[in-house]
Amino acid sequence: MVSSPVVNTYPLSSYTFGTKEPKMEKDTSVADRLARMKVNYMKEGMRTSVEAILLVQEHNHPHILLLQIGNTFCKLPGGRLKPGETEVEGLKRKLNGKLGANSPALQPDWQIGQCVAVWWRPNFETIMYPYCPPHITKPKECKKLFLVHLSEREYFAVPKNLKLLAVPLFELYDNVQRYGPVISTIPQQLSRFQFNMIPA
Amino acid sequence: MVSSPVVNTYPLSSYTFGTKEPKMEKDTSVADRLARMKVNYMKEGMRTSVEAILLVQEHNHPHILLLQIGNTFCKLPGGRLKPGETEVEGLKRKLNGKLGANSPALQPDWQIGQCVAVWWRPNFETIMYPYCPPHITKPKECKKLFLVHLSEREYFAVPKNLKLLAVPLFELYDNVQRYGPVISTIPQQLSRFQFNMIPA
Repeated sequence: MVSSPVVNTYPLSSYTFGTKEPKMEKDTSVADRLARMKVNYMKEGMRTSVEAILLVQEHNHPHILLLQIGNTFCKLPGGRLKPGETEVEGLKRKLNGKLGANSPALQPDWQIGQCVAVWWRPNFETIMYPYCPPHITKPKECKKLFLVHLSEREYFAVPKNLKLLAVPLFELYDNVQRYGPVISTIPQQLSRFQFNMIPA
Repeated sequence: MVSSPVVNTYPLSSYTFGTKEPKMEKDTSVADRLARMKVNYMKEGMRTSVEAILLVQEHNHPHILLLQIGNTFCKLPGGRLKPGETEVEGLKRKLNGKLGANSPALQPDWQIGQCVAVWWRPNFETIMYPYCPPHITKPKECKKLFLVHLSEREYFAVPKNLKLLAVPLFELYDNVQRYGPVISTIPQQLSRFQFNMIPA
């Protein structure tokens, strides 16, 4: 009960990175994004989104793969579930869309692991909380972060308009200004795991 | 694999609170504390400390039990393991010391659950990190936070010089100024659990 779960972490150099056609953002501004969220909520109810924490290691320290859009904004790979889709199915679909090769045979065998955090959006606003605030009976979004275990070798195809970065935990920690509240507290959520750093 | 673990949470009013003799802090200043840590490190090596997250509910929202010393400083119940002691044994001993009745028959049957966070102290300084920083080969302390499951009824005996507070997650969240980095990010670490709020 009290032993830490072990996560194998392979060197960044074990993975191969290619490119594929650009994957444009559906919204060009925060206001557009919140407006689209409202329209979808009217049709489908609360949005559930799923995001992946993909771990690699460099210099014996865990790093997380983030997608960078433009020069500043970083996000975890993932996205919104379709109505009726399970979290595992949806996250695999989103990971293939964001990082998988176009040919299904070359796509990673994503091993969806534990849910490490859940965030709630009470209103059609950017602010989210790691709990559903009291008196909120109709949250607008529930975002779940999953640890996704990578095999020793993988090929990632990165959309041409995005950059894939391996960001060390020490860079994310306490850096809410750059990474926002969801990504900057991933180090705390991962602290209970024991990382088995596999050498190159 | 992806379903959230469920935690039963009982109303604060199910629990009874009494007092017992004062439990004085071993150190009267941060400098004293770090100096004692150094002396102990020379004798026993890295300190392992264990702390408990005890959950109750009020108004359908999870609250955490914190011990308040004086008017400002709050801490989780717990403390340092003795050499050779297991985490579970040590945490039960510390919980009985801090919150158990003097008579063993009246002490709660503490159910030690999952480890939810691990913090590292690289130097004899107050700063801790939720990972062991790269290039630190001899950390000075490892602090582990465990979820401790309470039964439906319990009696807590609170040392007269301390106050036991039930603090809601929404008060802890994003409040590093008041609660420090370890306690203020507990809401994120608990977000993956599903709370089964049991009515009074």
